[in-house]
Amino acid sequence: MLIIPVVCSILALFFAGYLVVWIKKCDLGTPRMQEIFQAIKNGADAFLKRQNKTIGIMAVVLAVVLFSVYALSGKWVLGMQTSLAFLFGAFCSGLSGLIGMWISVRSNVRVASAAQSSFSKALTIALRGGAVSGITIVAMSLLGISGLYFIYTVFGYDPVRIPSLLVGFGFGASLVALFAQLGGGIYTKAADVGADLVGKIEKNIPEDDPRNPAVIADLVGDNVGDCAGRGADLFESTAAENIGAMIIGVALFPYFGINGILFPLVVRGFGLIATIVGLLVAKAKEDDEPLKALNKGYFVTCALAAIAFYFVTMGMLNNVLFFYAGLVGLAASVVFVFVTQYYTEHKYRPVQDIVKASETGHATNIIAGFAVGLECTAATVVTIAAALLASFKLGLMTGLPSGGIYATAVATMGMLSTAAYVLAMDTFGPITDNAGGIVEMSGSSEKARAITDKLDSAGNTTKALTKGYAMGSAALAAFLLFSAYFEEAKLVVVDLARVEVFVAGLIGAMLVFFFSSLAIRAVGKAASKIVEEVRRQFKEDPGLMQGTSTPDYARCVDITTKAALQQMILPGLLAVIIPIAVGVLFKAEAEAGLMMVATIVGVLLATVFNNSGGAWDNAKKYIETGHLGGKGSEAHKAAVTGDTVGDPFKDTAGPSLHVLVKLLGTLSLALVALFV
Amino acid sequence: MLIIPVVCSILALFFAGYLVVWIKKCDLGTPRMQEIFQAIKNGADAFLKRQNKTIGIMAVVLAVVLFSVYALSGKWVLGMQTSLAFLFGAFCSGLSGLIGMWISVRSNVRVASAAQSSFSKALTIALRGGAVSGITIVAMSLLGISGLYFIYTVFGYDPVRIPSLLVGFGFGASLVALFAQLGGGIYTKAADVGADLVGKIEKNIPEDDPRNPAVIADLVGDNVGDCAGRGADLFESTAAENIGAMIIGVALFPYFGINGILFPLVVRGFGLIATIVGLLVAKAKEDDEPLKALNKGYFVTCALAAIAFYFVTMGMLNNVLFFYAGLVGLAASVVFVFVTQYYTEHKYRPVQDIVKASETGHATNIIAGFAVGLECTAATVVTIAAALLASFKLGLMTGLPSGGIYATAVATMGMLSTAAYVLAMDTFGPITDNAGGIVEMSGSSEKARAITDKLDSAGNTTKALTKGYAMGSAALAAFLLFSAYFEEAKLVVVDLARVEVFVAGLIGAMLVFFFSSLAIRAVGKAASKIVEEVRRQFKEDPGLMQGTSTPDYARCVDITTKAALQQMILPGLLAVIIPIAVGVLFKAEAEAGLMMVATIVGVLLATVFNNSGGAWDNAKKYIETGHLGGKGSEAHKAAVTGDTVGDPFKDTAGPSLHVLVKLLGTLSLALVALFV
Repeated sequence: MLIIPVVCSILALFFAGYLVVWIKKCDLGTPRMQEIFQAIKNGADAFLKRQNKTIGIMAVVLAVVLFSVYALSGKWVLGMQTSLAFLFGAFCSGLSGLIGMWISVRSNVRVASAAQSSFSKALTIALRGGAVSGITIVAMSLLGISGLYFIYTVFGYDPVRIPSLLVGFGFGASLVALFAQLGGGIYTKAADVGADLVGKIEKNIPEDDPRNPAVIADLVGDNVGDCAGRGADLFESTAAENIGAMIIGVALFPYFGINGILFPLVVRGFGLIATIVGLLVAKAKEDDEPLKALNKGYFVTCALAAIAFYFVTMGMLNNVLFFYAGLVGLAASVVFVFVTQYYTEHKYRPVQDIVKASETGHATNIIAGFAVGLECTAATVVTIAAALLASFKLGLMTGLPSGGIYATAVATMGMLSTAAYVLAMDTFGPITDNAGGIVEMSGSSEKARAITDKLDSAGNTTKALTKGYAMGSAALAAFLLFSAYFEEAKLVVVDLARVEVFVAGLIGAMLVFFFSSLAIRAVGKAASKIVEEVRRQFKEDPGLMQGTSTPDYARCVDITTKAALQQMILPGLLAVIIPIAVGVLFKAEAEAGLMMVATIVGVLLATVFNNSGGAWDNAKKYIETGHLGGKGSEAHKAAVTGDTVGDPFKDTAGPSLHVLVKLLGTLSLALVALFV
Repeated sequence: MLIIPVVCSILALFFAGYLVVWIKKCDLGTPRMQEIFQAIKNGADAFLKRQNKTIGIMAVVLAVVLFSVYALSGKWVLGMQTSLAFLFGAFCSGLSGLIGMWISVRSNVRVASAAQSSFSKALTIALRGGAVSGITIVAMSLLGISGLYFIYTVFGYDPVRIPSLLVGFGFGASLVALFAQLGGGIYTKAADVGADLVGKIEKNIPEDDPRNPAVIADLVGDNVGDCAGRGADLFESTAAENIGAMIIGVALFPYFGINGILFPLVVRGFGLIATIVGLLVAKAKEDDEPLKALNKGYFVTCALAAIAFYFVTMGMLNNVLFFYAGLVGLAASVVFVFVTQYYTEHKYRPVQDIVKASETGHATNIIAGFAVGLECTAATVVTIAAALLASFKLGLMTGLPSGGIYATAVATMGMLSTAAYVLAMDTFGPITDNAGGIVEMSGSSEKARAITDKLDSAGNTTKALTKGYAMGSAALAAFLLFSAYFEEAKLVVVDLARVEVFVAGLIGAMLVFFFSSLAIRAVGKAASKIVEEVRRQFKEDPGLMQGTSTPDYARCVDITTKAALQQMILPGLLAVIIPIAVGVLFKAEAEAGLMMVATIVGVLLATVFNNSGGAWDNAKKYIETGHLGGKGSEAHKAAVTGDTVGDPFKDTAGPSLHVLVKLLGTLSLALVALFV
């Protein structure tokens, strides 16, 4: 059975390789474009190199700590296995980020070049660039886990024991993803806010103007935050979810045998194939709406994934109820996408509320946006609750012990079977955004701008939608990780009425709030350093504004890099130290309380951050299309305030919370031996 | 033993009566002041009359529903008892609000009058006005519960069963408090925002200018929101806490007998006496700082309460460990006050961060303020966690079964023994605020303005501090209510790992977010109606701006009243319907999950709202004292945005969440029969 995921992921990697070759063949554009490409590439490389060094040191230190702790309690072998798996997971997660960045930097400029002549070509390059990330990451995670599983089998381990030995892999992946998402998120928004505050507001020059010294840092930010950060994030998600589901599968070993354990990997493998077909289908004619093409591909992927799901479920678990549970998950993922759409698109009431509130000023814009964010938690929670309860009941109907929990795991697998496609759509966003910046900076034709504007607007929508999907799947996956943790910790209950568990829950909720505070403030601190530098450059060289001299882009990139890396340390470490301290002091049950309450709070707060941020952004864009006086009006100024507030919400705090929620799960799983 | 709380509360009521007579003797001021007083009084009366009618109808309907539900399951007598106690609690809570408003309206104008000649006299009137509310409310709650207890004893009920029969009283009080706080909170901020948006921003006239048609509505708002709303809120807090502690006392009946049950009431009685002494001590010389006098009284109250606590604990429970637990609670309340001070006073880093961020614009001001709010949850949670764990451990050391939980109840009692004094300081705030408004509107001397400004600034600080206290005590009290609920529902565990319980927890967290969204949005909706009306009046009568004609204040008051009452219905009903639905569908254990997770989230989110609101407010005030260019500068405009965003946070959503958290506890207690 293990052969299926291995073959599927190798096939998928070949397909990704084919896409890379195809992209590399596309035209690199004008010399000016290539120059900008080179600057972005250098900036992104420099950031990732330094970031990976910082994260690498922390990962090695933590691996040593991990090993020592196990060794001290006499578990040498387990300690060695866990810390090696940890390092392997950390390495793969870091590599995923690198791949995501590598391909997006190379796609951006080619999309910009293609936009000079053909909309259809530009769209295809952007989507394929995203697809390389999406497919490689999901395939690598699948191959990594299948590979480890295979190695342990060769060494004669009991297949039932193997999933527990893989948790270190998940923890390593989560840890790196947390820092990658945090550091990248701080970088991208600090550069964005810094460039806008001086450029747009003080100097009155447009966005992406080459006279702005921070403009390259801003473009680098999209690549390191949205591509590299999100890549690492999704790698750890898929890894954590697979391992969690396998551990739950162990509980059902008496009924399904090895099939219950390998089911998640096989389903994932077919999901990859479905994604490849979907990507090949997603093509647009010259005058199509970009979203139409993307949606076509998405629905093809969903349909194929559902069909594959049916055959795999019937073949391996031989119970149609589990197939229904998978459908519940798949359906929930579609609902998440629609809910996000409702809350963040200008067509609907929430964004219109914010637009209207912008008329009466900055404060009412902020209040309205924040109210929208708080409100949308209702739809999110109802969807999660319905999916959990429905799949659980379906599982109970199978009559198997642990059937209910296993069915929620199957639902999560259903939801995630389209992950690679969703990730491709997600990476489509920053690629088109960057392409737009390159077109703007290189002074290309109006036609090219119109094409990249159209793509960029579609990209903004897909970015928002995939955040809704990521958050929903994080909630389901977290429940899966809890269940796995109970299995591992041999817990029977998590009694919130015990004072230690309640206090741990309080601390978990606090961790989410406090972490968000640090993440949001980090953007402000890093941005203020960039503002100083940009102001200094404008002041010292009056030629910049006339466009007669070139600004020192590299210095801005360098300052942003240092500031972002410095600011990511404290929140990142807290997210690791607090749960370990609680687990060691108050033991496994309290740790579960922390994890579960933090998950609930984290999912809701991330929803608030993502959706209010997205809604503010689109309210501003709607006004910019000429409503309420358009650009420059008082309403527009208020809307810009909302958009700026939303930036660290939706691109730093929100995405980092996704990872935090899952990190708590993998951390607890990997360190469970310390907590019992 | 019951005689002690009864005598103490009757004594306290006499003392409050004496204060009323004393205040009524003070001078009512110039004819212009009396005119304004009359307008405020009429507006406040009209609002409360309509509000009480609306709430009264809902309470009666709910009482009938309550009774029918019990009757349908054959429990006629219990149904009758619960619904009568419910109505009695609702009535007392409504009455508390009325008393708070009645005395504050009458004190405001006398403070304004006294400010013309003497700072010391003005301060004394303001504090005594606040004291009437504080003492009456705590005494009434004590007398109500003692009275009900006495009646049941006379009818020969088993003393062990009586506490369970009182829960209806607590539920009634909570329900009315929720609507009172919501309605009042929406009113006060809608009027404030509405008056400012047109007056300050569009017409450029100062705050509290008599030419602004919404100015009376704004002054009425302080009375109905901060005085009436908070009065009902604190009535239900004390009632709920007393009943909860008594129920836990029942579990210890085999060891302490009736003493364990009556202990909370007796401690409360002595706390009242300590408060009276503290109030008499709190006097200021002509050139003192107002806070110095208030703090002196507070520390005397704390010291006396601690001494009384020692003797009551030793006399009734005969175990010094419980005394230590009480001290833990008392100490925690002092810590809460200092934490709030750190996060909201301009002397410290957090407010200075916001001030600095105002330099770079509206958005950075908002981001900085929001980050401060999120950050301060850390100190709050650490304090709550330490107090809970320390008192629990002390209780375990007694060796009694349930000793740990009982000790947390004793700690709550310790924290709340100074409640009446804190409430007096709280009501001091709106009284001085209103007095300042009256002085401004009546065109009094510079000296009078200087005095009311000084008092108002102290009042702002006390308002912020008491919110910190209220939130901390809500957290401890909620834990007490859970424990009582477990006793009543005969629950052994609240297993968050069960899918229904986890889903209920998700729903509980969502309820807090969604409720906040509705409360915040309600302010915006109501404010927009006032803005329309004020604009209309200015447009239709150009004489208003010249000051030659009088605006139609009453119409603004009327519109605000209607809008606020209309907007309070939906969030209020949701807060009742959702927990009942979850309890009925998923049963008692899930209900506990909802309640506990909602409490954790509610406490943290309220802390964010209160402290970021307070910090924004004080950042603005700091700039207004001449920093960063003072009034009218760009930094000031940004700070005004923050302050306006903070208004519905700290005066509508935050305080309403306090009540919501406790409502969930009393509701579950009162309806537990439906959930098992």
